[in-house]
Amino acid sequence: MAALTDSLDRQATPAELTERYESVRRASNGLGANLSDADATVQSMPDASPAKWHLAHTTWFFETMILRERDPGYRPFDDTYNFLFNSYYESVGERQPRPKRGMVTRPALDEVMAYREYVDEAMSRLLEDGPSEDVVELIELGCHHEQQHQELLLTDILHLFAQSPLKPAFKDPQPLAVEVRDAAPVSFETFDGGIVDIGHQGEGFAFDCEGPRHRALLEPYKLADRLVTNGEFIEFIEEGGYRDPLLWLSSGWADILENGWEMPFYWEKRDGEYWSMTLRGFQPVDRSAPVTHLSYFEADAFAAWAGKRLPSEAEWENATKGLSMDGNYVDSGRLRPRPASVEGDGLRQMFGDCWEWTRSAFSAYPGFRPVEGAVGEYNGKFMCGQFVLRGGSCVTPPNHIRPTYRNFFPPNARWQFSGLRLAEDN
Amino acid sequence: MAALTDSLDRQATPAELTERYESVRRASNGLGANLSDADATVQSMPDASPAKWHLAHTTWFFETMILRERDPGYRPFDDTYNFLFNSYYESVGERQPRPKRGMVTRPALDEVMAYREYVDEAMSRLLEDGPSEDVVELIELGCHHEQQHQELLLTDILHLFAQSPLKPAFKDPQPLAVEVRDAAPVSFETFDGGIVDIGHQGEGFAFDCEGPRHRALLEPYKLADRLVTNGEFIEFIEEGGYRDPLLWLSSGWADILENGWEMPFYWEKRDGEYWSMTLRGFQPVDRSAPVTHLSYFEADAFAAWAGKRLPSEAEWENATKGLSMDGNYVDSGRLRPRPASVEGDGLRQMFGDCWEWTRSAFSAYPGFRPVEGAVGEYNGKFMCGQFVLRGGSCVTPPNHIRPTYRNFFPPNARWQFSGLRLAEDN
Amino acid sequence: MAALTDSLDRQATPAELTERYESVRRASNGLGANLSDADATVQSMPDASPAKWHLAHTTWFFETMILRERDPGYRPFDDTYNFLFNSYYESVGERQPRPKRGMVTRPALDEVMAYREYVDEAMSRLLEDGPSEDVVELIELGCHHEQQHQELLLTDILHLFAQSPLKPAFKDPQPLAVEVRDAAPVSFETFDGGIVDIGHQGEGFAFDCEGPRHRALLEPYKLADRLVTNGEFIEFIEEGGYRDPLLWLSSGWADILENGWEMPFYWEKRDGEYWSMTLRGFQPVDRSAPVTHLSYFEADAFAAWAGKRLPSEAEWENATKGLSMDGNYVDSGRLRPRPASVEGDGLRQMFGDCWEWTRSAFSAYPGFRPVEGAVGEYNGKFMCGQFVLRGGSCVTPPNHIRPTYRNFFPPNARWQFSGLRLAEDN
Amino acid sequence: MAALTDSLDRQATPAELTERYESVRRASNGLGANLSDADATVQSMPDASPAKWHLAHTTWFFETMILRERDPGYRPFDDTYNFLFNSYYESVGERQPRPKRGMVTRPALDEVMAYREYVDEAMSRLLEDGPSEDVVELIELGCHHEQQHQELLLTDILHLFAQSPLKPAFKDPQPLAVEVRDAAPVSFETFDGGIVDIGHQGEGFAFDCEGPRHRALLEPYKLADRLVTNGEFIEFIEEGGYRDPLLWLSSGWADILENGWEMPFYWEKRDGEYWSMTLRGFQPVDRSAPVTHLSYFEADAFAAWAGKRLPSEAEWENATKGLSMDGNYVDSGRLRPRPASVEGDGLRQMFGDCWEWTRSAFSAYPGFRPVEGAVGEYNGKFMCGQFVLRGGSCVTPPNHIRPTYRNFFPPNARWQFSGLRLAEDN
Ligand SMILES: [Fe+3]
Ligand SMILES: [Fe+3]
Ligand SMILES: [Fe+3]
Ligand SMILES: [Fe+3]
Repeated sequence: MAALTDSLDRQATPAELTERYESVRRASNGLGANLSDADATVQSMPDASPAKWHLAHTTWFFETMILRERDPGYRPFDDTYNFLFNSYYESVGERQPRPKRGMVTRPALDEVMAYREYVDEAMSRLLEDGPSEDVVELIELGCHHEQQHQELLLTDILHLFAQSPLKPAFKDPQPLAVEVRDAAPVSFETFDGGIVDIGHQGEGFAFDCEGPRHRALLEPYKLADRLVTNGEFIEFIEEGGYRDPLLWLSSGWADILENGWEMPFYWEKRDGEYWSMTLRGFQPVDRSAPVTHLSYFEADAFAAWAGKRLPSEAEWENATKGLSMDGNYVDSGRLRPRPASVEGDGLRQMFGDCWEWTRSAFSAYPGFRPVEGAVGEYNGKFMCGQFVLRGGSCVTPPNHIRPTYRNFFPPNARWQFSGLRLAEDN
Repeated sequence: MAALTDSLDRQATPAELTERYESVRRASNGLGANLSDADATVQSMPDASPAKWHLAHTTWFFETMILRERDPGYRPFDDTYNFLFNSYYESVGERQPRPKRGMVTRPALDEVMAYREYVDEAMSRLLEDGPSEDVVELIELGCHHEQQHQELLLTDILHLFAQSPLKPAFKDPQPLAVEVRDAAPVSFETFDGGIVDIGHQGEGFAFDCEGPRHRALLEPYKLADRLVTNGEFIEFIEEGGYRDPLLWLSSGWADILENGWEMPFYWEKRDGEYWSMTLRGFQPVDRSAPVTHLSYFEADAFAAWAGKRLPSEAEWENATKGLSMDGNYVDSGRLRPRPASVEGDGLRQMFGDCWEWTRSAFSAYPGFRPVEGAVGEYNGKFMCGQFVLRGGSCVTPPNHIRPTYRNFFPPNARWQFSGLRLAEDN
Repeated sequence: MAALTDSLDRQATPAELTERYESVRRASNGLGANLSDADATVQSMPDASPAKWHLAHTTWFFETMILRERDPGYRPFDDTYNFLFNSYYESVGERQPRPKRGMVTRPALDEVMAYREYVDEAMSRLLEDGPSEDVVELIELGCHHEQQHQELLLTDILHLFAQSPLKPAFKDPQPLAVEVRDAAPVSFETFDGGIVDIGHQGEGFAFDCEGPRHRALLEPYKLADRLVTNGEFIEFIEEGGYRDPLLWLSSGWADILENGWEMPFYWEKRDGEYWSMTLRGFQPVDRSAPVTHLSYFEADAFAAWAGKRLPSEAEWENATKGLSMDGNYVDSGRLRPRPASVEGDGLRQMFGDCWEWTRSAFSAYPGFRPVEGAVGEYNGKFMCGQFVLRGGSCVTPPNHIRPTYRNFFPPNARWQFSGLRLAEDN
Repeated sequence: MAALTDSLDRQATPAELTERYESVRRASNGLGANLSDADATVQSMPDASPAKWHLAHTTWFFETMILRERDPGYRPFDDTYNFLFNSYYESVGERQPRPKRGMVTRPALDEVMAYREYVDEAMSRLLEDGPSEDVVELIELGCHHEQQHQELLLTDILHLFAQSPLKPAFKDPQPLAVEVRDAAPVSFETFDGGIVDIGHQGEGFAFDCEGPRHRALLEPYKLADRLVTNGEFIEFIEEGGYRDPLLWLSSGWADILENGWEMPFYWEKRDGEYWSMTLRGFQPVDRSAPVTHLSYFEADAFAAWAGKRLPSEAEWENATKGLSMDGNYVDSGRLRPRPASVEGDGLRQMFGDCWEWTRSAFSAYPGFRPVEGAVGEYNGKFMCGQFVLRGGSCVTPPNHIRPTYRNFFPPNARWQFSGLRLAEDN
């Protein structure tokens, strides 16, 4: 649910900007192509949104923040869409209440696709005309905003499909249901800590909450060189991890008692085997792949059980310095986390595969001030009751992630691709 | 929510039966034709079902109760449909939980239509072969079952469309938005009472709860010759009817305090005028037409305010003797209640326009015994916490209603076409 | 929750009236004597009231309806009590919300007892002066009202004590924990039915809803000559009664699924034996005694399992004609249902032991009109969603019950002394 | 809800320890003396506990952690008390569920007082015998534990009394209802920041979560020299603070919409004046006194409205260096926050009056490890969803507070004495 904003200073060429805009928009269209009108309309829980809503809302952003404001000749595609597809931008007017987004059966998916095309055409004219610098920034913001929603569209569709007794696959299960490869044994990398610089500054896009860049003081620490695997998590399950209150945060234990959690979200045990709902359909759990769809509570309890802890977000970010950002993102087409590579050494899976819960509550960096105005009203308002996740996932667009990127969710959220990496004091 | 069953003894000719089957099925297809895949998929509240579900479930009935049982060569259209489209037939196996019917985005509407066609073809072969007597009864039952669901499909779609800020019309608002005609003044017909026969017996189809026919003792009473109008109900509103606890049943008053009821369901007041969501879209309230979308509580409070009472179901049924069953049913195409005719005399609007709340709790007639087996497991289990409504509505199929027909809903249900007629002791 | 009202015409002598008043008041004081300030203050669920509230509210009735109205020299004991101890008399002003009655820790129990004494003294003066006829009626009403609350005080205290891990006894468990006597085999009495007179008329007190006396038409029927026993109910449990949906009303089955009911309220199974919380503490279940603390759903499911049905209230009342009203009431001091006597023949246990669920929804008798004014605002408003129980229980005061007495509770209520007697068509 | 633990190393003399134990126990008894059995029994919400429970639970701590473990001759006062008065110590066995603590009407308050005396006598013998070093530590811990519960007893009683329409005073309103003194104008103190030491170490008692002492990096900052006053908060209210979503955290705004917050907890507006429930009864709001009974959301929104922010806990703790800990604690007998002194300069009200919300989520200090065993199972489990408050309040025992003391509550908690002090970047 990381929300948008901010400014940047890198200078993209007009052609780059156009290419960026078009490729982002094309990617969304590609996601919509796998869905029926009904698939794209239903809201499976209040925290999720219909795919149609994601596709229209990201379009509404360009229409409202750019075309209506900057293009005097622009005529809105449909006057009702501002109400229907506004999200939480209190300053842009009334909107459809979030838990009732699924009641909007009309416009149909093909009308939403027509809306996308209409706005793309207007944007294309505007891009040709050479947009002003602040519009360039808004376009960049809109692209990142849309990429966030691409990821959410996929996590929300997975949730919807998991509710259906048919357990449909978003994408053909074959090839690549399960990779049979043993997980590499885990080892820990050591970091010295000290005063380090954290947060975004300077070149390139970032959301407001990623800055300002500031100094942080870290004690020496260690980080596991790969994510925790399904196999390791099954050990935790089978040794009674879900039944020992001493391992759990108090609110996590309450969730267990109330909801009967006994394995990760989307998992089922059938005839002694663990299976899981995935974007490739209902599949056996791959023991060597990273465990995902964990709440913060489960990640934290696992770490306690393993005698370790979760890293802080500053520890995590500091460890990325000098690392390549290659990883298993949405463009790999897998749509599932992949076992860590056994080759090479150093930290693996820091980017992609699954978001890593950190022990850091989502809060303002020193010196943070909310941006003024509609585009900027957001990240600050979520600085309560959420934990930071880092590194992106197998459904994150590859050029959307950064070392400074702060994703955040409440500690009981499980429908995202969220896993963990162990840490400890040195 | 009246559920099915029962036996009958009238002998329909094969041609009549085929014609009956085909016309019922055609009528359902006609309803589906107004809907998109998304319209037909979304469930707007736990008490409502998706249109697609209604269309498939009624088809499942013929497939499961007749084709699978009686046609050795029949191969089911899809093995998952028994799970998806079973309703509350506990004895026929597991089923999709009712409040999650809206999570089933697949099959799409066109696949459901193909399912309907597939079953119709198999049924057509079976009808040509001359079905046995008990199959004839099951077909008749299946037709009535489907007609019930036709009505529910319409009330459920109205509820869904009312949730959308666009307030779409199920059917074109024009012609016939509002009929400008004054309501005839009400007068009361007198009935002697005494020992009367109530309930279904003999020729023609009826559900199990309509029998056995039995004697009932009625004291002399009077019935209003038409339904209560919107105009009369507006008087009740404007004289503070919704604010006087002495007029209300205790649980009704609790509903008012909790939900803030201050006018009938689907009504809104805009600029001093009353408007209402209808199947013809959002429309001004027609003061001369019968008030509808009332809970039992509102009907009862109105009667108390008027110094009258609701009739019992036996009083109502006794009064229909000798009456024509002509009325404003779904086939009129209005899809809204119509003002009472000013011509003629005697009781008007006893059939069609809107269901009439009676003061009778839904309970077993003397001598009632539940029918054995899957087809018959039902009406008895709802004999708790519901009140009987009589007479059919503007969305009831015309050959589906009978003087003995007992519809029933909980007292706080408001999304049906439910209104009232006043009664008093003589 | 049967509420008060009505008029009567029997002429009590002044001495009888005084004796009646004093003995009712003394009985309440006796109940209070078993309780600590804390016992008398806590509200264990929204449907229950604190004992202190019952003791004060019944006193408030005499103060408000009689002393304040009729005794010009009377000065209220405390001005805040009208707010604190009014119940649902909307016309007498604001009141403490029912679910928050347990928040009123002050006045303490001894102050409430002082309030009782203060009002008794004023009433005593008024009784000596020879009250007018309408005041006599109000006193009689106040006495019946207080007796109702005596029963509720006991059922509410049982509920409270059942919540405590100490499971305290309201009254010393010894003597009379369990009576070891075999239950007499059940047999059925036959009744002809026909047109019978039902309801209260003429001499003696009755609540408004017991009249008017009216004709009812009954088909021939049979009634069991005793209540269903714990032993019989254990058979139902052990043959899977709580696990077979076909035996249950739809809402009852939903309650089972939601609340995990698997035996009567207050029961527990320990080491293979059934135990139950009672007013005499936690005790083994006596198989020969009547089963009690059943919901309507459980009573109805048991009857279905036994191949019988519940009687209607008219059938029950008709069967009492000519019967003695002797029974196991609160004055026996047992505070638990007692096994049916094996001597004699004819109907046993029609009065006392436990309330008998009937199949009749609580509704207005033909010709019923609510009484005007504060005292009479009540029974009519509960005529929705409740079933009638007949005959009184082991915690009912003996001169409070009548053949025409209609108690009523929602079908899921279990904390009253509610059991059942089987019936069937003849 | 700050919970207990930890070790300490200061060496108290036996006489000091005895004096400390006795004075803490005496203080609790003094609180109980103002209450009736009923006052002490009722639980007014799930987050609060009955006074009787606080009085017994703190005694249970000494009995269970010390007497049962260390005194072979000790015989427990009552075997059921371990179940009744255990709190969340999962490892010490089953316990009464927290939301049902108010169902325990027995033992009565005087029995609980007898229990206290019984344990005090046994402790007195043990203290005379010269306890071993680890027992000394446990006694110190038990005393701090009891002082925490003293504060909670007062906040919970205030909540209970606020539910009663009589709004009883815990302590006589006179003298000292309102102090009429103008609030001193606020000014800001400047701090340099840098690397500072935070957390407890060495001499004196502290809970586990206060350590380990560690380095923290602070940027330069300013702190207001006094708490925000009621008068200042009334400005916020009257300028629409509760109606502007841009000032609020997202979950805080949801709370406003759901609960209709429009002023601090316990406040009411009567005839244009603000009143508040207090431990001295229902009183006019004193504009010059610190505002209290704020949620984190309200504190944060006020700071946003004022163009400032809340301090971090490290900023707050760093600012206390060299400050006196004198303040308005429970021993002043006021039981309400007091206006800031106008004399002198520098920071005022850092200790006492009311707890100060900080912007810091409650989390583990670097190097924190949970203590092993029953006594130490706790603070770590609350490190999720809570914010830290600092400085103690007008109901905190004076020798219970420390500069390193970390209290914590969820952001919507309002029934504690919680207010705020403004901060800003330098
Ligand atoms: Fe967005
Ligand atoms: Fe059906
Ligand atoms: Fe009463
Ligand atoms: Fe404690």
